[in-house]
Amino acid sequence: MTDLQAGRTESFIAPLRVVPGKKVDLAADFDPKYEAGVAKKADGVELLRVGIELLAEYQRRLAAEQTRGVLVCLQALDAGGKDGTIRHVMSGMSPQGVRVANFKVPSVEELDHDYLWRYARRLPRRGQIVIFNRSHYEEVLVVRVHPENLDRQRLRASARGGNIWKRRYREINAWERYLTDNGFRVVKLFLNLSKEEQRIRFLKRIDVPERNWKFSAADVRERAHWDAYQQAFTHMLNATSTEWAPWYVIPADRKWRARLCAAAVLAHTLIDIDPQYPKMSAPARRELANARKELEEEANRGSG
Amino acid sequence: MTDLQAGRTESFIAPLRVVPGKKVDLAADFDPKYEAGVAKKADGVELLRVGIELLAEYQRRLAAEQTRGVLVCLQALDAGGKDGTIRHVMSGMSPQGVRVANFKVPSVEELDHDYLWRYARRLPRRGQIVIFNRSHYEEVLVVRVHPENLDRQRLRASARGGNIWKRRYREINAWERYLTDNGFRVVKLFLNLSKEEQRIRFLKRIDVPERNWKFSAADVRERAHWDAYQQAFTHMLNATSTEWAPWYVIPADRKWRARLCAAAVLAHTLIDIDPQYPKMSAPARRELANARKELEEEANRGSG
Repeated sequence: MTDLQAGRTESFIAPLRVVPGKKVDLAADFDPKYEAGVAKKADGVELLRVGIELLAEYQRRLAAEQTRGVLVCLQALDAGGKDGTIRHVMSGMSPQGVRVANFKVPSVEELDHDYLWRYARRLPRRGQIVIFNRSHYEEVLVVRVHPENLDRQRLRASARGGNIWKRRYREINAWERYLTDNGFRVVKLFLNLSKEEQRIRFLKRIDVPERNWKFSAADVRERAHWDAYQQAFTHMLNATSTEWAPWYVIPADRKWRARLCAAAVLAHTLIDIDPQYPKMSAPARRELANARKELEEEANRGSG
Repeated sequence: MTDLQAGRTESFIAPLRVVPGKKVDLAADFDPKYEAGVAKKADGVELLRVGIELLAEYQRRLAAEQTRGVLVCLQALDAGGKDGTIRHVMSGMSPQGVRVANFKVPSVEELDHDYLWRYARRLPRRGQIVIFNRSHYEEVLVVRVHPENLDRQRLRASARGGNIWKRRYREINAWERYLTDNGFRVVKLFLNLSKEEQRIRFLKRIDVPERNWKFSAADVRERAHWDAYQQAFTHMLNATSTEWAPWYVIPADRKWRARLCAAAVLAHTLIDIDPQYPKMSAPARRELANARKELEEEANRGSG
């Protein structure tokens, strides 16, 4: 906790990072209940409040600079806490500089294209932060667990054969490297929920009328594939945590802690980018000084 | 104030409404310092806080219902307070259900189309609230004050001749009626700023380094057209305040009051729409009850 209070985001988030090149196992190496040095909720909430103010200031600078952009990829199983994390982390930022992109079942037009097309269309502009609520990683997660999804993608035999997942990891890494080299940081957060906590949250959703309309029995049936998903996550973390875009595994069993960790990773990225307000040129400064004089004289003339 | 506290939004916002068919004069009929029955800032801030919670609840219902949508058109001269209003009014809402669309200088592709095309592309989906930060009304405001803008729109002589503004008012009214009839409410807010208050805000912008990078001497020069703009606003209010999409003139000289009035108009609209959480069908309810049982038994089996 003292790390974060002292602004040492690196030491706070380092244990969450999947070190590029190092082999990890999701179940063995990452605990959904990891405390991250913040045991008490009250402390976590206060740290998050401070973090949100910091994010707001950096977002204003990023928007002003209009040179770099940030893409946040948020992945989790159902009830992992994606929506709440987005709401909290964005709460202080200007809605004009931040956008959320949701990816649902692909449309016919989207299936007419290569699999990254629909994600590319919703990338951030320079100056903008975009949060992908689910992302191109679905293409190596849900599609891998349910490979019948590939049929609708109308791939040539050669594009399906061999190790399609290995190829997709390579393609995704190359794409993210291209984005990074061109000024867009890719921040990847995996909300790591335990199976028991998902069960508890599902039961709550069923019991609250304002929430159960969006819950379906299919969500429960998907739990039958829990182990296949965990395996797909482990493969993904090992293959796509890169120097330019490492994965962070966010302990998600406590919502307040997940939000704090997500905010810390994003804050760390923005501090590292260190965007600056544009400097005015000397002629622009002179022009502004003249404008100032004009406005002041207007008052003396009693105009208005 | 008691009106708003008692939830009587209609009597609170009625004085702000441009009554369709009634002739108004902006300068004579609307005071940028109108108090709206809330004299003290502390009262206004508290009312806004309550209003924002109400907006958040209605927005969740609108998003759940996914049948209707809301388009908020925000118009004002520079320093009118558009950005701050957007930030405050949206602060409680889920960023996934609300979007801001900014309209800057039209691109070459946009100029290749009819003048409403670029606005139509950014309309809300069902379930969504979209705020137009400047809107299609620029086509009868800045374009009217600076008609040289029409040259770039490559209109045929017949589309430019006669009374182009009268024609555009009619076209805009028809478009908004079509949207309304198809489930999309159009809420139109004009932030009414006095010339003296704009002068004061411009001076502040010049003096604050974090703000002056986005300020240019051209903004001051545009003040020379103040009267032409006021006239264009008056014409617009008279011609486009309709039964289906009336204009509201928001007193903008006090920022907190402008935000309160804007929130009240939007709240009034959402209360009137009265969106509902979807009701589950009997089979879906049964399925959910089964899923509940399954999840409970899972715990008894000690799985997880």
